Amino acid sequence: MNGSGSVESFILVINSGSSSLKFALYHSLNMHRQWSGQITGIATPHGLMELTDSHQRVHLCDEAIYRNQEDAALAIISWISNNHKFCEIAGIGYRIVQGGKYHRKPELITDALLSELAELIYLAPDHLPDELRLIRKFREEFPKTPHFACFDTFFHQDMPEHIKNYPLPEKFRNQGLVRYGFHGLSYEYVLQKLDKECSGIHQKKMIIAHLGIGSSMTSVSDCKGFDTTMGISPLGGMMMSTRSGDLDPGAILFILKNNDITVEELEVILSRQSGLKAISGIADLQEIIKYAGEDAKSKLALDMFCYQAVKSIGALAAGMGGLDMLIFTGGIGEHSSLIREQICTGLAFMGIRLDRSLNHQSNRIISHRDSGVNVRIIPTNEEWMIASHTKNLLQTQNLSCRKSQKKL
Amino acid sequence: MNGSGSVESFILVINSGSSSLKFALYHSLNMHRQWSGQITGIATPHGLMELTDSHQRVHLCDEAIYRNQEDAALAIISWISNNHKFCEIAGIGYRIVQGGKYHRKPELITDALLSELAELIYLAPDHLPDELRLIRKFREEFPKTPHFACFDTFFHQDMPEHIKNYPLPEKFRNQGLVRYGFHGLSYEYVLQKLDKECSGIHQKKMIIAHLGIGSSMTSVSDCKGFDTTMGISPLGGMMMSTRSGDLDPGAILFILKNNDITVEELEVILSRQSGLKAISGIADLQEIIKYAGEDAKSKLALDMFCYQAVKSIGALAAGMGGLDMLIFTGGIGEHSSLIREQICTGLAFMGIRLDRSLNHQSNRIISHRDSGVNVRIIPTNEEWMIASHTKNLLQTQNLSCRKSQKKL
Repeated sequence: MNGSGSVESFILVINSGSSSLKFALYHSLNMHRQWSGQITGIATPHGLMELTDSHQRVHLCDEAIYRNQEDAALAIISWISNNHKFCEIAGIGYRIVQGGKYHRKPELITDALLSELAELIYLAPDHLPDELRLIRKFREEFPKTPHFACFDTFFHQDMPEHIKNYPLPEKFRNQGLVRYGFHGLSYEYVLQKLDKECSGIHQKKMIIAHLGIGSSMTSVSDCKGFDTTMGISPLGGMMMSTRSGDLDPGAILFILKNNDITVEELEVILSRQSGLKAISGIADLQEIIKYAGEDAKSKLALDMFCYQAVKSIGALAAGMGGLDMLIFTGGIGEHSSLIREQICTGLAFMGIRLDRSLNHQSNRIISHRDSGVNVRIIPTNEEWMIASHTKNLLQTQNLSCRKSQKKL
Repeated sequence: MNGSGSVESFILVINSGSSSLKFALYHSLNMHRQWSGQITGIATPHGLMELTDSHQRVHLCDEAIYRNQEDAALAIISWISNNHKFCEIAGIGYRIVQGGKYHRKPELITDALLSELAELIYLAPDHLPDELRLIRKFREEFPKTPHFACFDTFFHQDMPEHIKNYPLPEKFRNQGLVRYGFHGLSYEYVLQKLDKECSGIHQKKMIIAHLGIGSSMTSVSDCKGFDTTMGISPLGGMMMSTRSGDLDPGAILFILKNNDITVEELEVILSRQSGLKAISGIADLQEIIKYAGEDAKSKLALDMFCYQAVKSIGALAAGMGGLDMLIFTGGIGEHSSLIREQICTGLAFMGIRLDRSLNHQSNRIISHRDSGVNVRIIPTNEEWMIASHTKNLLQTQNLSCRKSQKKL
């Protein structure tokens, strides 16, 4: 209970990755983040639960074994029960990677939606099954709480037809093989943050570069996602820590023909054994940067990553017919001044000019005042975005409840 | 025999495609093209042999059935025997799609080279077998004539390491899975032609867009191939008439998981049932242009093609840090003013400005005089390039013969 005696009300956010589960508790009224936490090393011998309070102080750092996402969910549920016994969880929001053609906007999770999403597992076989299990677990524990799905593909829903479609036979397109795009909650957050920082963004042609373990970029025109590097899966676009990015299909045919492997083994190769890791042996770009001075393979991996980023920016800018603003976000985008510098140096001809000192300080604006393109860093916050959607949906729900009560 | 009574000496050029075989006879001394011809519809019920003289007059247009490339080869051999009985074939040059890591430069075909190329069929299973069969056939008929291999990958041999490599496990890279690039003989021809047309091309950053049934682009810096859209196979890069171009690997995994098809069937889908054909039902871009006014699918295919071309130019220019010159070549690049205009319109922000009237006339230079980027059309001629390599190799051979005779 808070000082005034009324029950504190929170929004719980659940954001699951392949081997981690992030969560956060936001005050329902003021969207103030009370707690954030993550469980890493799920399905490995080195599970770890960390909790940070609203002042970024670490309150918990417990090692344990989490066999799967459900174990991790139980740990969060148990922590909430023990520490927030007298609080109300007003709503729970989940990041859902993929909702197919018909589920893009954030929406209330119902039995019907869960059944529909279960039918879409083939679109995101690496992510949806765990996400659905998590939702079921939390719904069991919080049966009276409304649960909301926030789709990573929402931001990209307005991609024009000539960008959304693959040049592949109609049969496959009818099966759902179109470009969806991902990291949408991150892009959405960055864009609404930018809208507060500067005026007139509706008129700007922008590229947001979300660079992290998974990396993608999106072009934004008229405040809408116009094009993006990822397609039907988070494997596409530019090379990443362990993912290949887009490939000549001949490369995949080559692997299949010259190696006795199954489709499942191929998927593991392309998603976990490719990218930076395949070149340097190291998946972490910050580590690679450390070694790039002496180690030729690390240098090669670094150069490949930056070259692909440069080409992606060139391609997206050309696709939209210009560039006014470039925004870096994500772990690498926010924290590596070297990567930002190496990428921007190659783009001087497009009017991009960094201020080295501002870039080194990871300032909010890092372009030189004479730069033709405004370059910024905006730290992303997918959890806040999910909480915000959840809050809006809760309000809409309450509103429609009140309306229907009035009618009665 | 010519007027002076000496035996006329020719270079024969053989350029084989998937369902066609082009050939040409060049005078050895002055590189004047005496005859050019093509056999199309190989392995279809509608085979056709066409012959054109040096004044572009059609001399033959015979329908016949050619079961395979060898049938087509026999037809050419028979035509030469009947019509050039008293001429000397000084050398025969072949376009070879792929020679792996160790065969890039044009070279004399020996038994040893043929054995080595036979070992490399896995790198180009769609092309090399036919090319090798053709060479064997012509060697049987012309056993005393020197035969030369001209590789399509030669032009791209200087690609830097960070561009040449795929972010895939070393095991596959060691098997030869690197980016080779294609259309090299076309790029080589265009570049040497450009060198004659304008000075200082060594200092220029250029993109050559070879747009045809197969389409690719290459960036050229310091007169060397820097990057190119195609990779290990001619399926990669931008979408083409029936080929998909680069894909999110997730798209291929999706197809394999959701459809009961073999790797061979997948290859047919990606190489013959994708691209423009998959979107509009028509593979020929000139046809598509005709229908794009009324037919939504044709319009979509056209827009997809141009958008991908625009992105490829943006990516290649960014990769090389600028663009001074853009050159269109290939069937579509040379003849479709509409495609050139649609592509260039999107690139105004990069300083590209077409002169509409010059473009409509398919002038040599089609950029406006105020354009920051010089835009040109250079009709390609792969056969001339092969003849030229053959001539050079013949001269080197004769020179070394004379030297060794002197030593004796």
